[in-house]
Amino acid sequence: MRIAIAQLNVTIGAFEAIFHKIEEAVEKARDSSVSLLCLTELVTCGYPPRDLLLRGDFVRANLELLERVAAMSWDDFAILLGYAEPRKPGPGKDLFNAAALCLGGKAIQNTRKSLLPTYDVFDETRYFAPGCEPEPMELFGRKLGVTICEDIWNEPGFVPQGGYERDPVETLVAKGADLLINLSASPFHLGKRAERQTLLKTKAVKYGLPLVYANQVGGNDELIFDGCSLVLGADGEVLSRAHSFEEDFLVVDLPEKGACGKTQRMEALFEDPPSEAVHALTLGLRDYVAKCGFDKVLLGLSGGIDSALTAAIAVRALSKEKVLGISMPGPYSSEGSLTDAKALAENLGIALEILPIEEPFKAFRRTLSPLFANLPEDVTEENLQARIRGVLLMALSNKFGHLLLTTGNKSETSVGYCTLYGDMNGGLAVISDVPKTLVYDCSRWLNLEKPTIPESTLLKPPSAELRPDQRDQDSLPPYEVLDPILEAFIEEGCSKGEIVDRGFEAPLVERIIKMVTRAEYKRRQAAPGLRITSKAFGIGRRYPIAADPSSLTELP
Amino acid sequence: MRIAIAQLNVTIGAFEAIFHKIEEAVEKARDSSVSLLCLTELVTCGYPPRDLLLRGDFVRANLELLERVAAMSWDDFAILLGYAEPRKPGPGKDLFNAAALCLGGKAIQNTRKSLLPTYDVFDETRYFAPGCEPEPMELFGRKLGVTICEDIWNEPGFVPQGGYERDPVETLVAKGADLLINLSASPFHLGKRAERQTLLKTKAVKYGLPLVYANQVGGNDELIFDGCSLVLGADGEVLSRAHSFEEDFLVVDLPEKGACGKTQRMEALFEDPPSEAVHALTLGLRDYVAKCGFDKVLLGLSGGIDSALTAAIAVRALSKEKVLGISMPGPYSSEGSLTDAKALAENLGIALEILPIEEPFKAFRRTLSPLFANLPEDVTEENLQARIRGVLLMALSNKFGHLLLTTGNKSETSVGYCTLYGDMNGGLAVISDVPKTLVYDCSRWLNLEKPTIPESTLLKPPSAELRPDQRDQDSLPPYEVLDPILEAFIEEGCSKGEIVDRGFEAPLVERIIKMVTRAEYKRRQAAPGLRITSKAFGIGRRYPIAADPSSLTELP
Repeated sequence: MRIAIAQLNVTIGAFEAIFHKIEEAVEKARDSSVSLLCLTELVTCGYPPRDLLLRGDFVRANLELLERVAAMSWDDFAILLGYAEPRKPGPGKDLFNAAALCLGGKAIQNTRKSLLPTYDVFDETRYFAPGCEPEPMELFGRKLGVTICEDIWNEPGFVPQGGYERDPVETLVAKGADLLINLSASPFHLGKRAERQTLLKTKAVKYGLPLVYANQVGGNDELIFDGCSLVLGADGEVLSRAHSFEEDFLVVDLPEKGACGKTQRMEALFEDPPSEAVHALTLGLRDYVAKCGFDKVLLGLSGGIDSALTAAIAVRALSKEKVLGISMPGPYSSEGSLTDAKALAENLGIALEILPIEEPFKAFRRTLSPLFANLPEDVTEENLQARIRGVLLMALSNKFGHLLLTTGNKSETSVGYCTLYGDMNGGLAVISDVPKTLVYDCSRWLNLEKPTIPESTLLKPPSAELRPDQRDQDSLPPYEVLDPILEAFIEEGCSKGEIVDRGFEAPLVERIIKMVTRAEYKRRQAAPGLRITSKAFGIGRRYPIAADPSSLTELP
Repeated sequence: MRIAIAQLNVTIGAFEAIFHKIEEAVEKARDSSVSLLCLTELVTCGYPPRDLLLRGDFVRANLELLERVAAMSWDDFAILLGYAEPRKPGPGKDLFNAAALCLGGKAIQNTRKSLLPTYDVFDETRYFAPGCEPEPMELFGRKLGVTICEDIWNEPGFVPQGGYERDPVETLVAKGADLLINLSASPFHLGKRAERQTLLKTKAVKYGLPLVYANQVGGNDELIFDGCSLVLGADGEVLSRAHSFEEDFLVVDLPEKGACGKTQRMEALFEDPPSEAVHALTLGLRDYVAKCGFDKVLLGLSGGIDSALTAAIAVRALSKEKVLGISMPGPYSSEGSLTDAKALAENLGIALEILPIEEPFKAFRRTLSPLFANLPEDVTEENLQARIRGVLLMALSNKFGHLLLTTGNKSETSVGYCTLYGDMNGGLAVISDVPKTLVYDCSRWLNLEKPTIPESTLLKPPSAELRPDQRDQDSLPPYEVLDPILEAFIEEGCSKGEIVDRGFEAPLVERIIKMVTRAEYKRRQAAPGLRITSKAFGIGRRYPIAADPSSLTELP
């Protein structure tokens, strides 16, 4: 049996464009004499559609698309794809997250997702009722055990908390499935591809069955889908693997029942975090810009490492002609601020404009002087400079129609070391899920490819340059100390006591936790940030603002 | 049997403060010889704790509090309260949303919420496993049918979509419950109190049982809990009702089994929307300010109706000494902009400062002139003015430590008629869920009490005053047309075709829908806004940004 996986990058709700992409995949499949074409979870509308699923018009459009796709199947060519299926009226949610098998021009069988994730970025019980007992689908003499995304993850160590009561894969195997197929929209985080391959191997080996895994690719707001679709033999060895971070079309001859198939030697997926991060962010940035209808981007270049890395990723994603850098020297900017920005722009081949903030800064201070007379300078004047830069960047964004990128990293976003309506301005926070230490690693990794980020940017101590001789480390512990504390608190959910047990000083841990909880109000107004860790700020982390954080610092 | 309801206003995670509030309620109950004190859902930590529930330290603190509360019960004095109960390790979520009955110094029985809402602002399956078959709790010769919030809402017409399979109230009655008790944290929206009373009456009458309904009060971020706890007789008549929008302590002698009790004459709850809205917003604003640790607020006063209403609500919530108004006239400000702001400040008795934006505006234009030379003026220069005002307000907020209120209404927030990082700046969006037509109604309602909002503010055509002779109605249809279209699209989820069927022109409807979907990126970065309708922006409405909106405008 020859199967194909179409790993498509779709825009949510772009029904016509989705149809044309599927049409193209069908043509390729026909040219390759494929018997079964596998598409991904909810491919009829793109994943995650979120509350668009609550709209009748949106669901109807997804059904119309399903019908048009089904019409492209014929008697010896089947298409398997995910879609949103309305349920009969009754208790529970109105929809199933379903997969249809199309043959002879029609959807002839379907199955429904049983395990609906409700953690991190997932809210599937908001929209879907769980499927009941799944049944294998009969096709060309084989019994397909079709599941959807989370359905295949119920394996100890792979799902958070206690997992699920049911195991749809086990049910399907018990009912005679001889080929496992999973349609997914499984978002990326660092190490996820390796983790996923381990899981899939575990499943294939456990049941001694080949496994076809079709995953969505592309960036949709915060989420980056890496693709990396897989076909495994009954022994768990990889028969074929699609590209990561780009569209792909995979054709595989499945082994006969009982045989293992010819293993292909694959590069390991255990890549370095900087390499994985840069590839993922490049895709996430490119797709957000394109799917929001922009052509070019702009960003402030401070001469620092965060804006340098963001600019370098933007150039990878879009090309140098589509990236505009702005240097905005202020009263406390070092000489390196401008020279490093210039060197970076030159290395990247991007345009650079220089807009000094001196004049608006003076004008604001004069305007505010009747109210600020005799008051000491404080963080107000620092924020003022950051906000003037934010206003200038947005003026350029408005005038030229370029999307503004914001350049804050995860460490500073965590502790609130950033200015709301200032350096936080922008349509997309490219590296807001990248801890500062990884920002350095990514920059060095990029420089290995081609030295673009100036050595002086890499070597100088980080500084916001908003007051004389300011350095990040005046307000924060060294990033080598800060980052592991943040990871323990935010990603692992450790308590203060648990973090102290790892060898950090209690007063420092307490101070960091307080900073993180108090900065919640800033993050609530932050731009969407590309997610590359297992716990990013945004839709996957929901904390109240008006809360007493002492519960998290006073308890062990 | 004498029972009491303590309708408390707690800060999320403020465990010590919560304990002291409960302690006070226990003392009052003792003074009134009460047999059973009813507290509200998750009162041990405040509702909604959101992802704090995923933290072991937070859950442990809630259990410690439960123990301390239980210790205050004795042999003839019981306490019933909601808390988060850890489950034994196993499949499913780690917690139950539970209620404990405490007697003789210990929690002796408990029950678990069966129906977990996963719509609008609710994400309960993210944290909780559903309870199984509930059992009545035996207390002083009665059988209490205790349920938690959503458990009592499974009545056709009262829950969205298809409702739930199970009905815990029915189960409890079938098992002999002779008194229904529901512990809630049920958020307010316009008309909700009346709707809730109708539901509760339906339940009491259906089962012929008295019903005790204990609801949380207070503002927690976007959500406003109105309190309005109730005790109904077996005939569904109200025996007692707690205050709305403030803490209260209710003592009621329940009728003997089978009797109905003495009905108290109550004012109807079917208040005017403006009255309900103003009361709710007053509470929401007061609590957000206090629970975030602020004392004073500031806001820009444009002379327009939105800032006038916001200022008036702030004065109601905090007192005139705690509100600072800032008038920031610009090149296109009308004379009325300043005179109306002055008249308002005088009427409200608040301080007013005047900061003209002329000088920073000129400075920005000079700074940008090398890049903007020969380009026509456009929305850039309008946004620039709004952003200069935003920077000035944040400078004052930073320097004086006042919380900045933002004043945008729901109509403009919907269509994106507002400037990101400009007039959208602020820690709390007080009226972002109030449609413009209701802004007028609320203002007139407030003026009935005491004429404070100047007549000229009420009468002049709305304008952003960012270019010569600008009026809202140059860019938007009249608000009397816009608001019903927005309500149909946003609150009711109608399709374009359904809205056109209500008598609106198709091209207009299409234009409005496009404006709403395209403004999603602005709203994603908006301040939390107080929710007063059944569908507010924020946590209860989750739309993708990078999506193709044509699906919502091209389909019927």
